[in-house]
Amino acid sequence: MDVEEAGGRVMDVEEGAGGAEVVQLLNLWASPFAMSCAIALNIKGVAFTYVDEDIPYQKSPLLLQSNPVYKEVPVLIHNDKPVSQSLVILEYIEEAWPPSWDAAGGAQRAALLPGKARLNALARFWAQYGNCKFIETGLKLMKKVGEEHEAARRDIVEQFFWFEKGLAETAAESAGGGNAGPFFFGNDCPCLPDIVMASLVSWKETYESLGAFTFPGPEQCPRMHRWLSAMAQLPAVTPAVPDKARLLTHCTLFREAVIQAAAAAKS
Amino acid sequence: MDVEEAGGRVMDVEEGAGGAEVVQLLNLWASPFAMSCAIALNIKGVAFTYVDEDIPYQKSPLLLQSNPVYKEVPVLIHNDKPVSQSLVILEYIEEAWPPSWDAAGGAQRAALLPGKARLNALARFWAQYGNCKFIETGLKLMKKVGEEHEAARRDIVEQFFWFEKGLAETAAESAGGGNAGPFFFGNDCPCLPDIVMASLVSWKETYESLGAFTFPGPEQCPRMHRWLSAMAQLPAVTPAVPDKARLLTHCTLFREAVIQAAAAAKS
Repeated sequence: MDVEEAGGRVMDVEEGAGGAEVVQLLNLWASPFAMSCAIALNIKGVAFTYVDEDIPYQKSPLLLQSNPVYKEVPVLIHNDKPVSQSLVILEYIEEAWPPSWDAAGGAQRAALLPGKARLNALARFWAQYGNCKFIETGLKLMKKVGEEHEAARRDIVEQFFWFEKGLAETAAESAGGGNAGPFFFGNDCPCLPDIVMASLVSWKETYESLGAFTFPGPEQCPRMHRWLSAMAQLPAVTPAVPDKARLLTHCTLFREAVIQAAAAAKS
Repeated sequence: MDVEEAGGRVMDVEEGAGGAEVVQLLNLWASPFAMSCAIALNIKGVAFTYVDEDIPYQKSPLLLQSNPVYKEVPVLIHNDKPVSQSLVILEYIEEAWPPSWDAAGGAQRAALLPGKARLNALARFWAQYGNCKFIETGLKLMKKVGEEHEAARRDIVEQFFWFEKGLAETAAESAGGGNAGPFFFGNDCPCLPDIVMASLVSWKETYESLGAFTFPGPEQCPRMHRWLSAMAQLPAVTPAVPDKARLLTHCTLFREAVIQAAAAAKS
């Protein structure tokens, strides 16, 4: 990276007027993908402003201009330059505001990746699984009907079990299994896959309601429940995830409209 | 990274017996995803052996054990440790065998990423678009029927146009637009999005045949056609992509079986 890490000053991005950074996050308040970007910025201590979009009803000119390929949130706009796709944004946040340490070796700015090739690969693997499988399956519980909805109900429980294994296996691979923290790699601080999955803090009950199922309990998935408790208490997470009741109401109304539209299309 | 770049020696992975690295790629000869990993290893100058899988007919115990979550190729096994998902594998290859330069500043081992946060984000964005959109759409031309097949025919042409824009825009952002090479960022050497899309060298005519369409020609997409010509001549690419006629025959037979199965399911 063309960055000067020692002083914690980012060198490879242009700065706004007067040297101040301008960071905006094009956002939809219920989007799990946007939440992960906000949480990563919070973890890094980067000040940013939300620009709330009204998807799917009306997409702003700023959204269409800054993400012409997908026309979707989230988009991170850093000093007028947009980056889109949440996994790409998370990697960008890690590189534009790289980890730094104080003189005593404490983290001044946290790392989103473990830092070794093998462990980074595991972090990216589970982050991608969360992003492209778990969250996508969860959204099908809201948006799909019939066989696709049935499949999503089964898949998301199986995926929850895979995350239980992922937590165990990454902890075992990291530091010879000596780490006992609640997050991936047995860490006490969240990294990439934790951040991608953090929306579960607010979405868990909504997924269960939309799919009329219950996730495996603490006796079957103790690591995932410990993970959820720890995640829900993080200062970087709480301001970035919506109120559970508001989310449930919103998604229930959305699903009712989906079911009505499907019934109307059939008749 | 916990790597010692100066000597070009990788420090953060365990080595095989006698200090020799053992690198295997679980492969399916026609897989665009596996091709990208082989090309990246070739670019890095990493010696590896193919382990050919017989998907979808029979998955080997090694595949099921090394990629239990997806049970799919490609899997890169580096000194007995598996990494799966092609975008994750490509990032791993970049980190496990990092770029290095000789005393004169020439590349001893090439970089797969541009190296600056902003440009890395663009590289990852287009690599992801190639992986998750273009190639997935291309495979639908083989595997889907009816409306999904129709949509894929339209989508892949639109996506080809997006890559034309991506080549232009990344060249304009890199080095103030002064780069005039054929690849992304106006480079003379391929990086992440080039590598992801390299399978098009062998798949282009097959996609066109499976979808009964023609990609836009050089007058509409001059950059993409220059890109294709340059890519087809790269020493890292030619041994990694299959013979066009063999691929076309294989995929045509596969598609005939898909159409027969769909017709049988209807009747």
